[in-house]
Amino acid sequence: MSTPPPVITFLSDYGHSDPFVGVCHAVVARICPEAHVVDLTHAVPRHDIRRAALVLRSALPYLPAGVHLAVVDPEVGAERRAVALRLADERLLVGPDNGVLAPAAARGDGVVEAVEIGRSPFRLEPVSATFHGRDLFAPVAAHLAAGTPLAEAGTPLDPDELVALELPRARLEGEVLVAHALTTDAFGNVALDASHAELAGSGLRLGHPVDIEVGGAAPVRTRYARTFADVAPGALLVYEDADRMLAVALNRGSARETLGLVEDVEVRLRPA
Amino acid sequence: MSTPPPVITFLSDYGHSDPFVGVCHAVVARICPEAHVVDLTHAVPRHDIRRAALVLRSALPYLPAGVHLAVVDPEVGAERRAVALRLADERLLVGPDNGVLAPAAARGDGVVEAVEIGRSPFRLEPVSATFHGRDLFAPVAAHLAAGTPLAEAGTPLDPDELVALELPRARLEGEVLVAHALTTDAFGNVALDASHAELAGSGLRLGHPVDIEVGGAAPVRTRYARTFADVAPGALLVYEDADRMLAVALNRGSARETLGLVEDVEVRLRPA
Amino acid sequence: MSTPPPVITFLSDYGHSDPFVGVCHAVVARICPEAHVVDLTHAVPRHDIRRAALVLRSALPYLPAGVHLAVVDPEVGAERRAVALRLADERLLVGPDNGVLAPAAARGDGVVEAVEIGRSPFRLEPVSATFHGRDLFAPVAAHLAAGTPLAEAGTPLDPDELVALELPRARLEGEVLVAHALTTDAFGNVALDASHAELAGSGLRLGHPVDIEVGGAAPVRTRYARTFADVAPGALLVYEDADRMLAVALNRGSARETLGLVEDVEVRLRPA
Repeated sequence: MSTPPPVITFLSDYGHSDPFVGVCHAVVARICPEAHVVDLTHAVPRHDIRRAALVLRSALPYLPAGVHLAVVDPEVGAERRAVALRLADERLLVGPDNGVLAPAAARGDGVVEAVEIGRSPFRLEPVSATFHGRDLFAPVAAHLAAGTPLAEAGTPLDPDELVALELPRARLEGEVLVAHALTTDAFGNVALDASHAELAGSGLRLGHPVDIEVGGAAPVRTRYARTFADVAPGALLVYEDADRMLAVALNRGSARETLGLVEDVEVRLRPA
Repeated sequence: MSTPPPVITFLSDYGHSDPFVGVCHAVVARICPEAHVVDLTHAVPRHDIRRAALVLRSALPYLPAGVHLAVVDPEVGAERRAVALRLADERLLVGPDNGVLAPAAARGDGVVEAVEIGRSPFRLEPVSATFHGRDLFAPVAAHLAAGTPLAEAGTPLDPDELVALELPRARLEGEVLVAHALTTDAFGNVALDASHAELAGSGLRLGHPVDIEVGGAAPVRTRYARTFADVAPGALLVYEDADRMLAVALNRGSARETLGLVEDVEVRLRPA
Repeated sequence: MSTPPPVITFLSDYGHSDPFVGVCHAVVARICPEAHVVDLTHAVPRHDIRRAALVLRSALPYLPAGVHLAVVDPEVGAERRAVALRLADERLLVGPDNGVLAPAAARGDGVVEAVEIGRSPFRLEPVSATFHGRDLFAPVAAHLAAGTPLAEAGTPLDPDELVALELPRARLEGEVLVAHALTTDAFGNVALDASHAELAGSGLRLGHPVDIEVGGAAPVRTRYARTFADVAPGALLVYEDADRMLAVALNRGSARETLGLVEDVEVRLRPA
């Protein structure tokens, strides 16, 4: 079998109402016709850097090695840096330096080489003030997919200067797991900042009841279940989601709305 | 010219708000990088097995031979079987065994080999309770696209044990065609369960008026037309749709809403 | 490296709720398996020929040479012509002859060869009355992508007989630029019919205030800025958009709604 085509994964908040995503695909096809572009999602809520960062981090273990392009860029045209990064696991990340790449970079064992690409020789001129996906990020990603060394894409940058993404951190208080709402999917299921390891250290036991307190409100009885089908329609559950994060859901409803699970709110989980 | 790439068609109710579809594409690209994945649609209404089944059946004659993946799976994580099927026409189908594959299997001349894939060696471990598209169905589809024999994907299953999909059946009562609302598209055009053959046997004649009775309501006068442009804006028509099924539409409006064409309602069509 | 795959770009108003786009992809894959289909967008508002025509014209310089398929076809099944065109720059356009291809054809240096494809030998029989994307346009595009000469796709047509698209034209009245609202994106940013050249000839100066009169209403003070970040949230700006057209926006809001910028309304811009 021949060499597999280079892969670019593409994540943005461009949506599907306008041709932004399609034009970026076209730009890639001109520069690196053999590239296989995988659209992760383009429905990240507009300007929601955290959501995009967490989507990319969660997806990373399932993505082929390649170039990972993430464009959520509220400061386009202003002073923010644009970067391309090489990780210890050889993946390449391309996007604005606003934290959107940071969690994925950490999951890929950290950044070993970084370049600033704001004045990359691969830019399409004249560069617009508002569409750097087309004029800057897609062209750089395509050249990297075609095998161009990272160093040719821009000017060297100390990886320690990259913008981090502040995220809340779950903790244990005895048997109580003190977590926070991290992100929500389209169905109102809410992921918390507690991973498999933190969950294992807590007093929560699969199949047992759990009292959940959201933002200081009165506790609500729920159950630590394996999946939605384990509770009745209309019932709440906590469960380990497909990204192995602790999550809260309402079977056939929205846990976010029912419990007021806004981003960063404290969620206390106590075995009942 | 070289061998064409293997094709996987992909149909689901995952929507585009979350990265579910993108991650399944990524999983395929890791296992079978040369596969060409054609997204049929991912906007099937959530958990609507019938709609997905009919979409797949209608599309089948237009799809390249290959692997046809359909994931509408309300019972994910519960007891339902997961299957991969080989049809008499050599197409391969992959999905939950809940009826979503059944109409396409019949159109492809029936199932000649079936395997249960719930414990397939191709699963991605640890298998999540909620995202079998990523952990089970996409990996199996990708291995099949890469040429792995069906028998290696799981354990043999008697095709007669597969779950069927109950659908209403149109009938003739003299010149009256007694049909039922089968499925609706996004514009409110409603397909009935009457095919080209049943239509031909009825008293309906192209260009002539038709009285239509929905669910026992008073008859409404409409016309058997070739296409929307044959009636005035705001007028009803019955027509043979692009899947060669009899359908009811309202030019520039919603027949579903106007006539109350909910799923399975009886629709009596009488030459006027 | 081997020859790059042929590219088909695909633009329509089919939306993503139904499998129309997916079935067209499947039809292409059967006829020309090596084709790379780039979806420009399928979210053009239903039947909005002008919007689609302007999207295609704007995108054209970024698209690989290839076949450009545009299907916005309110008169499908009626008398309108279906055509395939070869431009002076060797691009091929395929779609209904209702003006949707005209601005792109002009940007590609004009049509040098045209064929009418309504009875093309490449049609899929039986041709439906309502889904010419599947039965006519996609098959013709795929055969052209596979290298079939244009002349084999249909019967010759004089390019002068092609339907034009009427668009308003901006003009200068002294220092005042008299423009018109041309098209709107999903965020309510409104492109005017003034290009880079017309802008350069006006009295507008980057960074300076501008009075804007919409449809004879009282003038509103705004600013000619480079990008959104140059004005406060909630403030209006005029700017050169990513297609190098003069545009009006409201930072984090909808200029269309705020100023009543309906299609074709006159917009007078005066240095303040």
